Formats: sequence, C-alpha cells, structure tokens
Amino acid sequence: MSFDRLIENIVKTQNPSVVGLDPKLEYVPEYIIEKKVKKYDKTLKAAAKAILEFNKEIIDEIHDICPAIKPQAAYYEMYGWEGVKTLQRTIEYAQSKGMFVMTDGKRNDIGATMEAYATAHLGFTDVCGESIPAFGADALTVNGYLGTDGIAPLLEKCKTYDKGIFVLVKTSNKSSGELQDLSLEDGRTVYAAMGDMCEKWGQEDMGRFGYSGVGAVIGATYPEQLSEMRRALPHTFFLVPGYGAQGGGAEGVAKGFDKNGLGAIVNSSRAVMCAYKKEECDPHDFAKAARREVIRMKEDIISFLPKIALP
Amino acid sequence: MSFDRLIENIVKTQNPSVVGLDPKLEYVPEYIIEKKVKKYDKTLKAAAKAILEFNKEIIDEIHDICPAIKPQAAYYEMYGWEGVKTLQRTIEYAQSKGMFVMTDGKRNDIGATMEAYATAHLGFTDVCGESIPAFGADALTVNGYLGTDGIAPLLEKCKTYDKGIFVLVKTSNKSSGELQDLSLEDGRTVYAAMGDMCEKWGQEDMGRFGYSGVGAVIGATYPEQLSEMRRALPHTFFLVPGYGAQGGGAEGVAKGFDKNGLGAIVNSSRAVMCAYKKEECDPHDFAKAARREVIRMKEDIISFLPKIALP
Repeated sequence: MSFDRLIENIVKTQNPSVVGLDPKLEYVPEYIIEKKVKKYDKTLKAAAKAILEFNKEIIDEIHDICPAIKPQAAYYEMYGWEGVKTLQRTIEYAQSKGMFVMTDGKRNDIGATMEAYATAHLGFTDVCGESIPAFGADALTVNGYLGTDGIAPLLEKCKTYDKGIFVLVKTSNKSSGELQDLSLEDGRTVYAAMGDMCEKWGQEDMGRFGYSGVGAVIGATYPEQLSEMRRALPHTFFLVPGYGAQGGGAEGVAKGFDKNGLGAIVNSSRAVMCAYKKEECDPHDFAKAARREVIRMKEDIISFLPKIALP
Repeated sequence: MSFDRLIENIVKTQNPSVVGLDPKLEYVPEYIIEKKVKKYDKTLKAAAKAILEFNKEIIDEIHDICPAIKPQAAYYEMYGWEGVKTLQRTIEYAQSKGMFVMTDGKRNDIGATMEAYATAHLGFTDVCGESIPAFGADALTVNGYLGTDGIAPLLEKCKTYDKGIFVLVKTSNKSSGELQDLSLEDGRTVYAAMGDMCEKWGQEDMGRFGYSGVGAVIGATYPEQLSEMRRALPHTFFLVPGYGAQGGGAEGVAKGFDKNGLGAIVNSSRAVMCAYKKEECDPHDFAKAARREVIRMKEDIISFLPKIALP
C-alpha cells in the first residue's frame, strides 16, 4: 500500500501534476463527434466512442511528460453504461502507456459494500474462480464520512496490490466549509479530524519514500489549509484539485509540498482538455494543445518548488 | 421535487419497506450462473447477465407488494461496465412494473461534477440535441460532506423531474460515529448539523404530504438517533438501512416514522435476496422465497406502526 509508483513517475517526469480526464461531450472536437454520430446516430454509444477517441489521443501526447491521469467517474456515468465502458478502456489505455491512474469516484459506504467498491476499482472480481479486474485503477478517491469500517476494505486491497486511496479532507469548492470547517469541541475542525484519520489509517503500511497509501484531497483554493495540513499530516500524500479554472494558483499549491518537492500532486482538467479552444488552434491539434498546456502548468508549479528528488 | 410518488406507492402497498438489490454473484442460484457461463464463459458479462435474470425474477414476484427497490451501485460496478449495464436494465425493468427506484450510489463532488452525476442518475444527457436518460432512477443517495454546492445541482434536477435525494446523516455501520458523532462547539453533533442542512435544502420545494425531496439516511442500528432526528427534521423523509442482517429491529425502526405511519422507508437486502438459502427451499423458487420474506418483513414493521395513511 503506497504511492511509491506515483512518486517514481513524478520524479521521472519532474512533473507533480495530473491531468483530469473529465470529458463532457462539448469538450470533444466537432469532427470526432460527427464521425461517431454518423456511425452510431445521436446515442450514448456515439458520445462514449467519441470521448474514448479524445482521451486516447490526449494520453498518446502526454504520457511521456505527465505521471498520471485522473478520470472523473461522473462524466462517464453521464453517458450511461457505454460511458462507463469508456472509463474502463481509458484506464486500461493509460496504464498500457505507463501512466498511474486515479479514478475520481469519491466512493463511500458501509464495510460490506465498500468491499465491493474496493474490488471494483482497485481489485479483482471473482467469477466462478476466474479473477478479473473490473476497472483496475491504481488509486481511488473516497469519502470518509462513514469512518474506519468504510475505509478498511480499501486498505486491504491497497496492501495486496500496492495501490492507494485519497480521502476527501478539505475540498476545493466554495461551500466546503459548511461542514468541513465546523469547529469541534476539542478545538479541531471537522476537516482536521478527517486528516488525522488519514494519518492513522496510513500508519500501518508506509511506502519507501515516507508516504503511506492513504492520501488526502485538499483544494488548491485553500492554501492556508494546505499549509496547515502539510505540517499536521507528514505521511499523507495530497491530491490537490482546483488549480487554474477553479482559481487556485501555483504559489498557493506549493504549500502542499515537502522539502523534496514531493508530497502532493496538482490536478488540472478543463484547461488541458480544452486547451485547443483557448488557443483557438486547429481542432485537429487538440492533443498537441493539451501537451502544451501540461508543459505550461508543470513549469508554473515547479517554479515555486524545490528540485523534485527522492528523499 | 418530492417523495410523493414513493409515498403513494407505500400507501398503496401498505408497505414502508424497500428491497435492496445488492446482488453478489454468490447470491444467485447456481442453475442461473451455469446457464450464463455456458453461453458467455467465466466472464464479467456472464456474471452481469446472471444478476439481471435474478433481479428481474425478484421484481416480477414483489412489484405488487413492495413500493420500491434500491440497487446498490457498488455491486454492479464490481462486475465492470457489463455490471453497470445490468444496473441500468434493472432500473428500467422495475420502473416498467411501477416501482420507485432509488439508486444507492452515495455520490458526492463539487458543483460542476455533481451536475454530471445529477444528469447521469436523475436527469437526461444531451447528445447533439437528443435527450437521453443515462440511468434514470427516481432518487439517488448522496453524501453531503462538500456542502451546498455539491447538492444544488441535484435539487434542480429533482425539481424539474419530480425526483428525490437521500443525504447520509447517521449511517448504520459501527464506526459511523468516528466523524458523525463528534461534538461541535455549538453543542450539535456532526450528524445533526448534516440533518439541519437537509431540512434547509428541502424547504424551498415541499411535497403534498409534508415531506420535501431531500431525505436523510439514518441507520436502523441507531434507534435513539432515529427518534432524535424524526423530531428535529419534520419535513425530511428517512431511508433506514440496517434492518435485519445488520441488527436493527422493527421496534427501533418504528422511531423513524410519523403519526401517519409515514416519513420513513426501511431497507432490507440480503435477507430478501437470499431468503431461498435460509429457507433451504428449491433454488428455482428463489423469487417466491423473496416474496415471502418481503411479506414477513412488512408485517414485522407495520406491527409497530400506526395505520399507514395519507395525511
């Protein structure tokens, strides 16, 4: 159970950022959509096929300079089971190119059910003795509102298959404070209490670089909390959404990193997927535009960090 | 936005319980699995097809005596996109028989992404002007850890299409208290703060029977909290898991109901799906055994309630 493979990818690419593949159909260039609609009509299947082609081309262009992708389950579910098939194909394709895949599903449930989610996203499903990966990601985002027995089944899968989870601690959205910032009797906030649980869940199985396989999601939009949590949770790797489109800047996200330029990975979704729209370049070059944005983002972030190196 | 259609189904069947369709392959009788494996080999497809046949037969047997089903997304995701296709087919089939369908997905995310989940599970996806239901349930369970902007997109869909959500408040599992029972500075618990948000989110659009479309999940295993929340949240309809297998009894769950025998619906999953195993009857009669368990459960619960009637 660790993020060692992710950390190695980060060091290799010198890039502590992850591309969120959250593809609404409207992000996909017209010419791809037209081709699929011609073949499959205006159906969820056409949408799902268009998105898969879009994803694959982006992965082809970025896999050598970007350590990971983070597909957001919601955008695939929006296109029905055909969309979910595209999620599975996207995970498989990115892994075949050496990328670390974090499925952003924010799954949560009681123990017995979490066991099913853990199997689905990080493990292997048994069918009459055959062991088959259903989605087979390297990490999964989860919500810890249900406490330890909703997390334990994940830890077991993470240990067995060297995978990781990211638990929501302080989310990037405006209203995240409504519950997460409430003050507890003991002086902590709700998000700090959740952070403490992450350290605890992670401590029994530490990776080689000082981080466990239990990470935390902390929004780029809250740099003070990033800084506070970096100090409080020394063994917890951070997934930092909210950079760019949501307003988080590189100077702020730097607060989530340690002295080796590690300890966090910053996500960007729309800015990469829709870079060709912002550039107003030929839509056929959408993947190359995505690559340019990945490089721009990487340079922006590392300009505020110490040199990225294994401890 | 309401649970009016659910409440009408409850009154019609005089049954305030819902069958959780959380089908592990091991719950499905051997003869069904063998048939599918013969046709599709030991694959996720075979598993998914077996589960769909199992679900449909149960729905055929219970739709006239049970108001709703609650398929748990995790168990379908465990069988990959083929499993997720079975989820969609199950929802469609149950609705065609007049049942109210609550997808148990405990989805949660920031606003823009929650919009995608809301579209996926309660709304219609746009594909080049065609409006297509991706999963099309009547209600969805959600986790409110991210606050209002993770809930708002759901409320909009619920209003437009008269659907509902159930927000996790006090879950049925043993460790639910680790976060949910923490005491806030203002004297409330975390779960009570979440409950208060449910009342607030629901208040702008009330159903005809005094309940909004924003419900709460409160475990049968915590009868005191059920009672406390019933008093505190008069317009919030409860989904009560944890009856039976998890240890919640009928006398306890009765505390979640109002003076009209309404205000709550109690879930049972395994006890219904695996009734044929407990009865040790012919596995071919699994659906009839499920029907017998639905009747037994209903009689058990209503024996502690006032006569169920519209207010």
